[in-house]
Parts: sequence; structure tokens; C-alpha cells
Amino acid sequence: MATMETLDLLFKPRSIAVIGAAHTPEKLGGTILKNLLKYKGRVYPVNPKYDELMGMKTYPSLSDIPEPVDLSLIARPASEVPEILREHRGRARFAVIISSGFAETGHENLQDEIKKIGNEAGVRMIGPNCMGVYNPYNRLDTFFLPPDRVRRPKRGNVAVVSQSGAFLHCLFGVMVVANIGISRAVTYGNAVDIDESDLYEYLADNPETDVVISYIESVRDGRRFIEKARLLDKKKPLLVLKSGKGSSGQAAAYSHTGRLAGRYEVFSSVLGQFGIREMKDFDEMTDCMKALSYQRPSRGKKILIITNGGGSGVLASDECMRQGFEVRRLSDEKMRRMKEIFPDFYVLNNPVDLTAQVEDAQYVTVLKELKDEYDGFLIVALTGVRGITENLAGMLRDFMAEVGKPIVFHTSCGCESGRLVNLVEKAGIPVYLSPERAVKGLKALLRPQFAG
Amino acid sequence: MATMETLDLLFKPRSIAVIGAAHTPEKLGGTILKNLLKYKGRVYPVNPKYDELMGMKTYPSLSDIPEPVDLSLIARPASEVPEILREHRGRARFAVIISSGFAETGHENLQDEIKKIGNEAGVRMIGPNCMGVYNPYNRLDTFFLPPDRVRRPKRGNVAVVSQSGAFLHCLFGVMVVANIGISRAVTYGNAVDIDESDLYEYLADNPETDVVISYIESVRDGRRFIEKARLLDKKKPLLVLKSGKGSSGQAAAYSHTGRLAGRYEVFSSVLGQFGIREMKDFDEMTDCMKALSYQRPSRGKKILIITNGGGSGVLASDECMRQGFEVRRLSDEKMRRMKEIFPDFYVLNNPVDLTAQVEDAQYVTVLKELKDEYDGFLIVALTGVRGITENLAGMLRDFMAEVGKPIVFHTSCGCESGRLVNLVEKAGIPVYLSPERAVKGLKALLRPQFAG
Repeated sequence: MATMETLDLLFKPRSIAVIGAAHTPEKLGGTILKNLLKYKGRVYPVNPKYDELMGMKTYPSLSDIPEPVDLSLIARPASEVPEILREHRGRARFAVIISSGFAETGHENLQDEIKKIGNEAGVRMIGPNCMGVYNPYNRLDTFFLPPDRVRRPKRGNVAVVSQSGAFLHCLFGVMVVANIGISRAVTYGNAVDIDESDLYEYLADNPETDVVISYIESVRDGRRFIEKARLLDKKKPLLVLKSGKGSSGQAAAYSHTGRLAGRYEVFSSVLGQFGIREMKDFDEMTDCMKALSYQRPSRGKKILIITNGGGSGVLASDECMRQGFEVRRLSDEKMRRMKEIFPDFYVLNNPVDLTAQVEDAQYVTVLKELKDEYDGFLIVALTGVRGITENLAGMLRDFMAEVGKPIVFHTSCGCESGRLVNLVEKAGIPVYLSPERAVKGLKALLRPQFAG
Repeated sequence: MATMETLDLLFKPRSIAVIGAAHTPEKLGGTILKNLLKYKGRVYPVNPKYDELMGMKTYPSLSDIPEPVDLSLIARPASEVPEILREHRGRARFAVIISSGFAETGHENLQDEIKKIGNEAGVRMIGPNCMGVYNPYNRLDTFFLPPDRVRRPKRGNVAVVSQSGAFLHCLFGVMVVANIGISRAVTYGNAVDIDESDLYEYLADNPETDVVISYIESVRDGRRFIEKARLLDKKKPLLVLKSGKGSSGQAAAYSHTGRLAGRYEVFSSVLGQFGIREMKDFDEMTDCMKALSYQRPSRGKKILIITNGGGSGVLASDECMRQGFEVRRLSDEKMRRMKEIFPDFYVLNNPVDLTAQVEDAQYVTVLKELKDEYDGFLIVALTGVRGITENLAGMLRDFMAEVGKPIVFHTSCGCESGRLVNLVEKAGIPVYLSPERAVKGLKALLRPQFAG
């Protein structure tokens, strides 16, 4: 078992060997080396054909490097990996095996072989068939994705544990666009050694991480998985997306990481039993991630919707119902109070409809009046009318600091709303481009069973 | 009943009166007038306080305009609307009543009154509590949304029939971003006269419309609704989003348009019985709209997934299963053939995984080999690797012209993929930013019960 201490070294290696380093970013081994140029630790390219790569002294093999390294990255064809791993004994603590062509393409024997060799050499392995590790706090980046093609998210509080590189790649895209920061990322592929359970244990105590995203195709040891998932989820929210659900998905998962996906229904019901959040698909995952990276979860189910578009309020109410929320009408006393404040044609119910005649300060007037009667708030501010201005962002930020309950925001998409979206998110409020997705974000923040 | 001929005049009026026209776009009546400055027909501002507005001669009342008009727009407080409508006898064929403050705020009597007055005056009414009509083919635009805040979509083939202005506002945002064109749009609010059924009948024969989007909170005459919906859906796809589903949603819908939403389950089951597509939420609506605006629907359920990211393929397979599609593995013969063509580490199953080593031309190689064995195709091309280039768009366009079956495309989000997304959509292939949404788009294009 990896302990927190040892895994910390995986994310903070003092020295890294790049086996299969190349001279050009046109090759994977070149992209990886280039991404490590800005790394603060010592980096040793390994390639017998070169004396120097990208200005760095290059070594024929791992054994020729002047010191044992904390981390080696292996980007050579699958057939060479056994021999390379044998050299690791006493020369490397961790190895990320990026190479593919193991169980996922039917070469189970080769995979068994590297597992055995790695274990005998005393090296902890990530992969094979993976992209490795990412830590923006020290610029560790073993991903073979060129940064001009896949921008890295800013530093932040979301950790990503993904069996798939593609999932992480797509998630990075969403994080950059949605202004979500990352604390750690790992893709672990076929998982011959270190797997999600080890990483959960590490992340539970990682102070930079507040939320953990986990994309899983298969789990080797179900009991251990549940144990570590519960341990983690007690400390910070864990969001699990399990793929390979049906027969075709399972076949695809096996072809992808060479591990059997197992019976999905059993997996899902066990997650539910322990109150661990299971995400239905990629979009639900990103919606919930966004909410939890911006705000801390709390309890309750009474939602107040304030809108300037009636139809958006109705769609949000429908989604609240589907998610088990209550959209209770205003109390008679509050209704009377609101009628004193607002014009006759405003719809003073729940949703409160401020109509196209809205002025931005009215959202906060309503929020202040009703803050004690509801557990969470959905603000719908469609930017098509002149009463919605960028000042709304600051007003909501001030209100949120005062009330300490979850608030999410929905606005229409399009360039016109871009600046407002940015300001509202800077104010710590997640923005969604449909009413239903906003409610799903709120759902991530309000759980009856979560102690907050 | 409105016939197609009469409703054609609503979208192509020779003359328009703007009752409540204002001198500044800061007011709704000013925005409307400004948006009509570029209209090709005759426009008459009506406002007793001005002789001239925005350079146009202005009239004290409808009766003072030198000719009867085809269309009047009423943007005055609710209390004035009865008197204004009385003046319509013989002076206007259609009236769009933009004013709110009728049944949706509890003033049912006032609404009954205007309905009676309008009928007696022989004027066909849209609204009240609505934004009216939009026809990009002649620049008719009665919406009070300033174009600098809500950009209008380009001309195209999607008609929008929406009870809610907010829904339309949000949909316009999506259409602009997703490069989807519009043929007609109407928001009809409380629907005292012209409703969705009338509009379906008109759109069934409208040559500029290939797809109809309908957002409904309540239906007055269920039997007539179903009759017209079926008539329309036989000619072109109708996508219905019914809101006001649960008790809170129904209360919200009543507060919004002053009409009872009715029992949702009955509505939904009748739609299903007649094979009319019901959308679950705003996002499903926009995903399906996009697919159907780009390609014509056909039949079948066998899907081929070609990806360069394994995890994305697994998530897509899972969604295919949920949507009732089949993701059959390749026949033995085709498998052999593919193994001759591609490297050993490619996963030649379904999904076909071209891995991070992909070259763009390989997608078309696979498509050409397997085109006869599948009914629809999902291309996943994550742009993080150098083998994906903008040339892929042209290759797919050529293949599509040759094969005539639905193709959808998924790529990661982020600026890096922006240009490729644009080119692929210009090539007539809808792009989605998650694997699951791409499959939902494909679902809109492949129906067992749709004759194509």
C-alpha cells in the first residue's frame, strides 16, 4: 500500500528521468520533455542516440544517470518496457509507464510480466497506457498533450483521478473555460499498481484539494475501493463517474484499459448505500465539479428561484422537482411585504419573476427579505434587458458573504453575457447556461446527508 | 381558425403600427421601433406625445394612420389595452399584445375582456405577455430585446414557437454560438387567440422551415394540439419541450402565462403514442435542434464510434446503450481487414480507438471500410494531439456527401478546438462538447419510426 507520504513524492519528485525523451515536440517523448523544462527539480533525459536534448545532458540509460531518481517516465514501445523496468531496481522510486499496447490490445501476458518485474524491482508504478501526473503547484507535468493544444487549468482546489487520458483532456477544456482551478491530476490507465484507492487515500489529506473527481472504468478490489472512497468522502466531496455500464460500454472499457468493468448495478448501489455521489455522465460531472469548486456544500432542500424570465423559472422549478428539492411559495407575511416593495406586474411567488423590467439591485432586495426562509438560491439573470448590469456580480458577492448559503447563477449564453459570467464567477458563484444545469449545480451543494 | 394564408401575413405584413413607440431604446417601445427601422414594409409609430420618432412621422392613435395596417404592436400598460383594441376594428388584421399584467398576475378578468374585444373587432391576436414575431427573411423583428444584448441568429431552417420569451432569448444565444439558422420565431405568451396549433399548421407548409422547436407551458385544446402536431410532424420534425411538470413547476407556469399546465403525465403519454419527440430539458432541446438543423433524419440503430480517446469512446458507448442504440463489434472479416491497415496498438473494435497516435485521414479510412455496416457515425476527435488537423473537416464533408447517413462529432472544449469546430459545422456536421450529448444528437437523427 502506498502511504500518503510516499505518494507525496510522486507529486513532488526531486528528480525525474524521461526514458524515451525526444528532440522535437512532434514526438510524445519530446512534448513531455518540453513540458518539464520549467520543472523546479532535476530532469534527466534518457535516449542512447543523443548526448543532449533541448539543452539538457542526455543519458544512454537509467543506470547512467548520476543519482537514483524519484520518478521515471517511460515513453518507449511496449515490448521494451520489461527490460527498462528491470533497470529500475534501486534507481527509481516511481515509474509512470506511458506506453500502450498491453492488456487493452490483448497483450495480457506482457502486462502481467511488467507488473511482476516492477514489483520485484521495488518500483511503484502508474499505468501502463496512461499520461501520468500533474501538479500545478510545482509545475510537474508529465502529460504528452502539447500546452498549445490543451491549455492547463489554473491552480485551484479540484483533484482529478482518471483512468482515462481522454476524460482528463476534456475535463481540462471545461476547467479552463469555466475558470476552475486544479490541485492534482493523475491518469492511471491499466493500473497494474497504483490505482484510485491509493490516490483517494493521498488526496484525503492533501491540503490543496477540496473536491475529488474520479473517472473509473474498472475497480480491481471493490472492498478497498469503498473503504478509501468513504474515508475520502468524509473529508471532502468525491464525485465518481463510472463508465462501462452496459454490455457495449463494458466491451469498450475492456478494450481501453484491459480490465473488466464488472456489474455496474452492484457498483452503483454500493456507492448509493454509502452516500457517495455518482455522476450520470460527463456533463453532470462538470456541473457538480464547478459548484463544489466554488462553494462549500451545506444542508437543506428549500430553494428560492429569482428570475427575470418566466419560462426559465418554470424550467428551473421542474428540475428542482426532479432533484427532490422544494420550491415552496412565499409565506403570506413575506408576500405582503414584497407587494409593498415591487410593482404590480411582478410575479411575487416562487419563482419570483422580476420580469423584463427588472433592475439588478432588486435581486438582492428579494434575497435579503427571504434569506432565512430558504436553504439555497438560484438567480436567473438573462442579459437581454438593460436592467441587468455587471454591478450584479458585486452585489451577489456581498450578499453571499453575509448569508453563507449556496447560490448558483443561470444566464443565457452568447458573447453578450461573457463579461457578466466572468465577474459572477470571480465573485465565487458558479454560472450555468441552462436552468436545469444550474439546479444540478445546486444539488451538488445541498445534501440532506452531508454534514457540511 | 387561422389558415396558412392569413398567418403568412403575420410574418410578412405590408404595414406595421407601433402603439407605444418611444424615442429611446432605453424603453421597450423604443427598442421595438429601432429594430423595425430596417424593415422593408411601412412602419407607423403611434404616440400622442410626439410628432416624430426616430425620423418617422408619428400618429396620435391607430385611427389616425392613413391606411389600415396588417399588424399592430401594443406596448402600453395592461389597463390601456382594452381601449386600444377597440380601435382595431377595420384598422388592423393582426395585433401583437406585448403588455403584461393579465392572467399571469391574477388579472383574469382583464384578459377575458381583451379577448372578447379583440374577437369582436375581428383582429387576430398574439399574446398578451409576449414578444411577438420574428422573420429574418424580411427583417421583421418585434422583439423588445436590444440586438446589442441579444444577437439574432442567421437565416436558416429552424422555426421556434415559444410560449416564453425567456426560452426564446436563451435559445437565440445557443443558436448564435452553435451556428444554427432560424426561419421564423414567435413568442405567444398567454395565448388568448393564436396559439401553438395555429402556428404548427402554418409552419407545416412553410418552405423555409425544416425543423420546429416548441416550448409549451399549457395547451388550451388538447385534441386540436395533437391533431396539428401530428400534421406538422409528418412533414418535418417537431421537438416539444413541455414545462410546468410538477406541482411547483405548474404553479410557476400559471404565474407565468396564467394558463393551467394540466396533468403532465397525460400530455407526455399522448405525445409518445403519436411518436412526437418530447425533450426532457433545455439542453436536450438544443442538442436535438442542432442535429436536425444540420442533417435530415433517417432510420436505424447500429452506431459506429471512431475515437482517438478511449475513455470518450466508453462514455459514448454507455450513452448509446441508454438511448437504445446498438454498438456492435466489427465483423470478423472487417476486423481482419482493419488489422492489415492499422498498427498493432490501435484498438480495432467498436469503438475503434485510433489512440493518441492518430492521423486525421484514418477516420475516413475506417468510415469507408465500415460505412455499409452501420446506420450512423460518431466521430470523436480530441484536439490535444498533433494528428488531428483542420483538414479533417473537409474529409468528413466529402465522406458525408458520398454515404448519406447521419454523422455527429465530439471534441473537447476550449479555444484550441474552436477553429476545427467551426469548420466541421460549416461542413454540415453538428459538433458536441461531451460524448453523451453527441449521442443524443445522433438519437434525433436516427429513429426507427421515422420514415426519413
